[in-house]
Amino acid sequence: MKNKSISETRAYRLEMNEKILNSGFRDYNKFFALDNKAYVKGALPAKTKELMGLVASMVLRCNDCIFYHIDRSIYEGATRDELMESFNIALVVGGSIVIPHLRYAFDVMDELFDLKKNEKAQTEEKE
Amino acid sequence: MKNKSISETRAYRLEMNEKILNSGFRDYNKFFALDNKAYVKGALPAKTKELMGLVASMVLRCNDCIFYHIDRSIYEGATRDELMESFNIALVVGGSIVIPHLRYAFDVMDELFDLKKNEKAQTEEKE
Amino acid sequence: MKNKSISETRAYRLEMNEKILNSGFRDYNKFFALDNKAYVKGALPAKTKELMGLVASMVLRCNDCIFYHIDRSIYEGATRDELMESFNIALVVGGSIVIPHLRYAFDVMDELFDLKKNEKAQTEEKE
Amino acid sequence: MKNKSISETRAYRLEMNEKILNSGFRDYNKFFALDNKAYVKGALPAKTKELMGLVASMVLRCNDCIFYHIDRSIYEGATRDELMESFNIALVVGGSIVIPHLRYAFDVMDELFDLKKNEKAQTEEKE
Amino acid sequence: MKNKSISETRAYRLEMNEKILNSGFRDYNKFFALDNKAYVKGALPAKTKELMGLVASMVLRCNDCIFYHIDRSIYEGATRDELMESFNIALVVGGSIVIPHLRYAFDVMDELFDLKKNEKAQTEEKE
Amino acid sequence: MKNKSISETRAYRLEMNEKILNSGFRDYNKFFALDNKAYVKGALPAKTKELMGLVASMVLRCNDCIFYHIDRSIYEGATRDELMESFNIALVVGGSIVIPHLRYAFDVMDELFDLKKNEKAQTEEKE
Repeated sequence: MKNKSISETRAYRLEMNEKILNSGFRDYNKFFALDNKAYVKGALPAKTKELMGLVASMVLRCNDCIFYHIDRSIYEGATRDELMESFNIALVVGGSIVIPHLRYAFDVMDELFDLKKNEKAQTEEKE
Repeated sequence: MKNKSISETRAYRLEMNEKILNSGFRDYNKFFALDNKAYVKGALPAKTKELMGLVASMVLRCNDCIFYHIDRSIYEGATRDELMESFNIALVVGGSIVIPHLRYAFDVMDELFDLKKNEKAQTEEKE
Repeated sequence: MKNKSISETRAYRLEMNEKILNSGFRDYNKFFALDNKAYVKGALPAKTKELMGLVASMVLRCNDCIFYHIDRSIYEGATRDELMESFNIALVVGGSIVIPHLRYAFDVMDELFDLKKNEKAQTEEKE
Repeated sequence: MKNKSISETRAYRLEMNEKILNSGFRDYNKFFALDNKAYVKGALPAKTKELMGLVASMVLRCNDCIFYHIDRSIYEGATRDELMESFNIALVVGGSIVIPHLRYAFDVMDELFDLKKNEKAQTEEKE
Repeated sequence: MKNKSISETRAYRLEMNEKILNSGFRDYNKFFALDNKAYVKGALPAKTKELMGLVASMVLRCNDCIFYHIDRSIYEGATRDELMESFNIALVVGGSIVIPHLRYAFDVMDELFDLKKNEKAQTEEKE
Repeated sequence: MKNKSISETRAYRLEMNEKILNSGFRDYNKFFALDNKAYVKGALPAKTKELMGLVASMVLRCNDCIFYHIDRSIYEGATRDELMESFNIALVVGGSIVIPHLRYAFDVMDELFDLKKNEKAQTEEKE
């Protein structure tokens, strides 16, 4: 994964979601609304919910979903340790078949933390 | 589910785990140790981890695992609202195929909260 | 499966769905509404959609869902041959792991067709 | 997806299937024959069966299979609305984990309808 | 599991398979034939193939299939140690979600070995 | 797949595993140790265990895992016939949804046998 790949991954996701949500089939929009709402702060914080979505994505072995929930978890303030503990629950629940996705998750996590650090550094330089 | 069934479910689990852990095949014991450790308080609280295990169990559609993680979550202090939000993440991630397990989860949750209330009432009576 | 078991299965489903839909967590209701709507006649007939739901339920190996979609398919006019062709697609796509669910599907199908015949006979007697 | 990619996808599939069917292990040939036969017109039309195969492929999250069944469905006369209703059943049954495959399905569907239109236009020009 | 339950499990399986194989839908018979043939001695011994079927059944979490392949493996001469090593591969590949099926597998294995011992004892008494 | 791709696949696997095993989260190391140990010769030979891991990987549809277990099986002496019988068990258990992974498995198998032959030829030339 490179930074460019992160922005590309985010862009493709947005582009295709647009296509689906503008298809005229309105029940997709309702499903996507329910999906988004499931992770909004309620009795549980948004960060916890994103980490839950991450664990579910890992045991179901969906890299696109793993990318998305790591991205969102970090945005909601998840630390490296919290992510590694979440990865571990997924590994233990889902078994060695999860390992290729654990490799992907590490790759993505490191890129996203690097990106965040760079963005922060750039912001501070400008100040 | 009746209270008796809860104690039976817990008892069968213990009995069979004993059998596995005393089989002489030591790698089972190591796996079970890793499994238990994954839910111990670390960077994330035990309650959060149990709820993660619950969501993973629901999307993978394993009733025994659902029972166990609801039981443990409630023990770790999870509220009805927190459980319902966790169920909802599993429902949205896993789809309508999760609904039979959502029915089971509601059944178990209500029994376990009733049991907890009764135990508390009995404790207070004795005091 | 006995006729009684069919009515019990239907009754338990209704009872627990009531519980979920009256839990106060309104996003369950929205999900269930989307779920129901997915099988309503549109460009494709309701019978076709129920048979699609059946094939999906068989490859995902969910007996409760199999029961429901066979019940609904027969209500929408599916014949024994149409059901057997649908079962076969599920068997070929999902493999021998689907066989226990194929056994269940045959059991349920026969009971439901018997039930339908009896109901029809009773209706004609009364006339 | 580009038109070229469609022909490449079709070509790779054919090439590798040849390899398997010429491997000398005859039970592969029998399995493939059963697989093909499952979608042939019987009590249910071929289009319906292809759409069933599509829904099964989406809930089991297999892009190669999704490609194949969309390709075949369109060949058998499925419309955009029929495909979108089929996608929606898969989305509701399988949950948000299906969304990356819904994105893929939209991508493939649009390409295949464009391709069909172009082929038709070229045929008419020649007349 | 009791011995009676073992004979019941075997009997129900036979009865329902008869129903499917006599349904008049001949492609079921072809699928079942391929299924049986996959485990016949070839380059690999029958015992090895049954243990492979067992591992596949455990990671796919199908108790009926687990029962069948343990039953067949023991018939083909698999020992307790060979079964436990096979269970362990399934546990490691499939993760803790396999544990309820590991409990079931232990239960079934012990019953089947007891049954085999009793049958042998009865045979020797008669001689 | 080209020979280079085989070495790349092996290299990426090693590189990312290093990252995980040096992350400081020690339970990953324990899980990986259990994973490796599951395939070591015991009551069952290493080759048999690798073929079991292969069948499990195919029915769970994980290409990275399929690559690894074919690579290891061939190293442990598995023949083309033994591999094809193992693929067939996976195909029958897991159904047509496994076919894209069967195509991948054939591709990988042929490359790995070619590679082995070349390595042997080079060794003999040098002598």
